[in-house]
Amino acid sequence: MEALRCLPCVGPKSAQRMAFHLLERNREGGRRLASVMAQAMEKIGHCQRCRTLSETDLCRLCINPNRNDAQLCIVETPADVVILERVTDYRGRYFVLGGHLSPLDGIGPRELGLDLLDKLLSEGHVQEMILAVNPTVEGEATSHYISEMGKERAIQVTRIAHGVPLGGELEYVDGGTLSHAFADRRVL
Amino acid sequence: MEALRCLPCVGPKSAQRMAFHLLERNREGGRRLASVMAQAMEKIGHCQRCRTLSETDLCRLCINPNRNDAQLCIVETPADVVILERVTDYRGRYFVLGGHLSPLDGIGPRELGLDLLDKLLSEGHVQEMILAVNPTVEGEATSHYISEMGKERAIQVTRIAHGVPLGGELEYVDGGTLSHAFADRRVL
Repeated sequence: MEALRCLPCVGPKSAQRMAFHLLERNREGGRRLASVMAQAMEKIGHCQRCRTLSETDLCRLCINPNRNDAQLCIVETPADVVILERVTDYRGRYFVLGGHLSPLDGIGPRELGLDLLDKLLSEGHVQEMILAVNPTVEGEATSHYISEMGKERAIQVTRIAHGVPLGGELEYVDGGTLSHAFADRRVL
Repeated sequence: MEALRCLPCVGPKSAQRMAFHLLERNREGGRRLASVMAQAMEKIGHCQRCRTLSETDLCRLCINPNRNDAQLCIVETPADVVILERVTDYRGRYFVLGGHLSPLDGIGPRELGLDLLDKLLSEGHVQEMILAVNPTVEGEATSHYISEMGKERAIQVTRIAHGVPLGGELEYVDGGTLSHAFADRRVL
């Protein structure tokens, strides 16, 4: 139970329920999970190019010759790569920061792999850098820092749109988002 | 209790709690609420120009000579006017639809006051019509209808930005919004 607590959103009660469930009703599943988890912990590292999670030195997206080298999408987490691949028809490359700038927690440009990003940009293939970093305060600061890196190399820097979520109602959107969405209105 | 059920989000339990609370602990408040509510129900009507809720024939925003006649913001509800006034520095006029097109519920152009909107546009003051209708399916259909009305009169039609809410995380945003936000990215 103590060990299960390392899972996100699992408190003492959930941990107890999980433990008893596995012990009493699904030992086979528990064995398999333990084994797969042990393997995953040892074998899955980070892609040496884009820093996403990968079992190999270079991930599948990085070695895919059909992806467009001219576009580079910057995200915070490997989960963001997965979801963007699912919902968009983007065919460029990615770079995973693994978080956002947070000096108080000791997370600076080095921890986000920005030296690696700089090396990647210096290759000269990238023409558009798309910032898909979370629009939080820390994410904005990170975006700003990275956009300056792009501008120094005369790379076009774009940012995914921020505004009212589709299907949302104005009344339930926070003031900051609504104010931004209003100011950032588009010609139809 | 039965009568309290007409309030939004009030089910049988809430209604019972409210009723007992007023009866046992705050009769004075209950009396005042009953009186204010009765007055409001009788006295508050709709502005004859913009259709928002108003005690007078023309609302305060419509009679304010300092507002800009060249901009007209289209919203679904009077609550949207209140929130936009609070979070933006918009100084133009409003027009309140009172809902969105919904043929199955018998809500067509007439019910949304689009004849009144047409008359307002025909005065020739409006140069930009800002659509701040909810980005739901019905809202989009309504936006489309109204944008055609604007285009016929060569009025610029804009729409508030849709995308990832500020402070939100990509992982928790629905696929449709994220896909739209990606496609609609902005040059920084």
